[in-house]
Amino acid sequence: MNDNSWQPHCPVGVSAQTERITLAHGEGGRAMRQLIHDRIVPRLRNPNFSDANDAAALPALQGPLAFTTDSFVVSPLFFPGGDIGTLAVYGTVNDLVVAGARPRWLSLSFILEEGLPLDVFDRVVESVAAAARRANVEIVTGDTKVVPRGAADGLFITTSGIGELISPIPAGPRSLLAGDELIVSGPIGCHGVAILACRENLGFEPAPTSDCAPLVEVADALRAAAIPVRAMRDATRGGVAAVLHEWAGQCELTMRIDETALPVSSDVRGICELLGMDPLHVANEGTMVIAVPAGAGESGLAALRQVSLSKEAALIGAVQPRGIAPVTIRRSLGVEQPLDEPHGAPLPRIC
Amino acid sequence: MNDNSWQPHCPVGVSAQTERITLAHGEGGRAMRQLIHDRIVPRLRNPNFSDANDAAALPALQGPLAFTTDSFVVSPLFFPGGDIGTLAVYGTVNDLVVAGARPRWLSLSFILEEGLPLDVFDRVVESVAAAARRANVEIVTGDTKVVPRGAADGLFITTSGIGELISPIPAGPRSLLAGDELIVSGPIGCHGVAILACRENLGFEPAPTSDCAPLVEVADALRAAAIPVRAMRDATRGGVAAVLHEWAGQCELTMRIDETALPVSSDVRGICELLGMDPLHVANEGTMVIAVPAGAGESGLAALRQVSLSKEAALIGAVQPRGIAPVTIRRSLGVEQPLDEPHGAPLPRIC
Repeated sequence: MNDNSWQPHCPVGVSAQTERITLAHGEGGRAMRQLIHDRIVPRLRNPNFSDANDAAALPALQGPLAFTTDSFVVSPLFFPGGDIGTLAVYGTVNDLVVAGARPRWLSLSFILEEGLPLDVFDRVVESVAAAARRANVEIVTGDTKVVPRGAADGLFITTSGIGELISPIPAGPRSLLAGDELIVSGPIGCHGVAILACRENLGFEPAPTSDCAPLVEVADALRAAAIPVRAMRDATRGGVAAVLHEWAGQCELTMRIDETALPVSSDVRGICELLGMDPLHVANEGTMVIAVPAGAGESGLAALRQVSLSKEAALIGAVQPRGIAPVTIRRSLGVEQPLDEPHGAPLPRIC
Repeated sequence: MNDNSWQPHCPVGVSAQTERITLAHGEGGRAMRQLIHDRIVPRLRNPNFSDANDAAALPALQGPLAFTTDSFVVSPLFFPGGDIGTLAVYGTVNDLVVAGARPRWLSLSFILEEGLPLDVFDRVVESVAAAARRANVEIVTGDTKVVPRGAADGLFITTSGIGELISPIPAGPRSLLAGDELIVSGPIGCHGVAILACRENLGFEPAPTSDCAPLVEVADALRAAAIPVRAMRDATRGGVAAVLHEWAGQCELTMRIDETALPVSSDVRGICELLGMDPLHVANEGTMVIAVPAGAGESGLAALRQVSLSKEAALIGAVQPRGIAPVTIRRSLGVEQPLDEPHGAPLPRIC
């Protein structure tokens, strides 16, 4: 990789004189201890944070657990609406939320490229800390590895999360029935378009912004209103289309959506048209698909609209007996067409 | 990186016609689902394995939890005694073990470089599965990201683990007292020397072998014999010296060890002498340092020697009031000298 491969396309003010990550920061000795104690511990400190040992000791949870993991390799590291740190926290938090859990504890593991400016690292750790506060989770354990220049691209993060499953736990996509209604919690395609516009310097003004956010309050609103959720899923890689295809595969029914019902902002619509992309295939990082029983869609929307993050929630379709394809879309003129599953790589390194 | 950067220096028979990882395998669509369902799920399946959702649902644990994470970037991917898959399982298992926990569940997250041969990936997944069986843990959730050629070096793995803390939980290094005895559970330096000899093609016959192994039975043996362990720590990056320095920093006493008491195999000793390294600074992956109260060392050794992995356990020193340095070593002629904390990068990408 070239020497500035970690440098975001949106400038962050890295000077030539800046201190940088060295291989010694990954070797288990004094340099690594200093990195952890001077730059990570003070920012992430909380009652359960394990600074002394490799494992955190955590109090017992009463009920069953949810456990999840995700690696983040987004490029660029910083983008309008977030950065790799916010993404790493919210991505794992949202995986717990859609499993029906209250997120409690996260682990945080860095793979750093030798030469990464320390102030870039610091900014990412600050973002992780702020995102954890916003999502009300604690970072409790971590790891740091350094690889030589060229063996990684700047900085990768892997987060894992533990949550407490809360009754009633959604039964999941295998439980879907014909007639169930399909909701998205907000406008679609914002994250993917924001990354692409930033990475490729497309020069839109204002720059499109990622929807990167924790879905904790959104799920809480559904729970508080006693909406009988059958399945929830954050529509990340592959977008809403990937979620619908996965669900259709599991329940062996058809997911039918209406094009005119999809909440798509004008900038996302414009950029997607320009680049020949379908917003249904574009990644989101703070938007989920929700399935509720027939007739529960309107009360679900009412609950969602109480929360600022999901105030543009929309009913986008319904589950049908298996028809012409696993997922179909009724176009604006009324024709029903198959909606392809994303196969290729429209947007690598989106998260 | 060059086009064969993932190719282990110890040959694995990758042919030019082999199938390879593509960016599509990381994009959330059909190719990724196929990779997961055809190559990962069948090998790792267990009752708690989450193949349908992003988070695993796990039964409640009665007591407190231990939670840990580690990223693995070892080069080469395959080496005598193990590979990145065994390392990723045992590394995280051992972090749980030394925290006083019984390892239960692991997450597994891959960062793959476009172009990685699929049979290399398959072999690593097989290793992960075999290691999980040996350590008696379940892989329950995972993630796969793909980055373009040159943005990573072949394959990185991050594992996180959840364990059940078992009473009595070691109080940890802050509880160490002058007079406590220090034990290592087996010969030191094997892992680092094995990696180095393999990576640099040093051509030793037989090739030195990593000690990569799960420490579950070793800790069980101490528990079964009711040895009052104050602290345990697997001596990975930075070797035994890094553990002793960390402990000395936390209890503010001196760790004094005897050079003549250190279990070092003749091949590790020879290679370290040749390369000017100290076996105390070289990484282990199946060897831990144990501190027990004064007088408990011999019964600790007796318990450890019941287990094949720790049959060469040795009493290597004792905790003393803070003396000339945080860690000291009594050389074979009787002189006591400070033992340096590893600072630099003697062996990058050792784990």
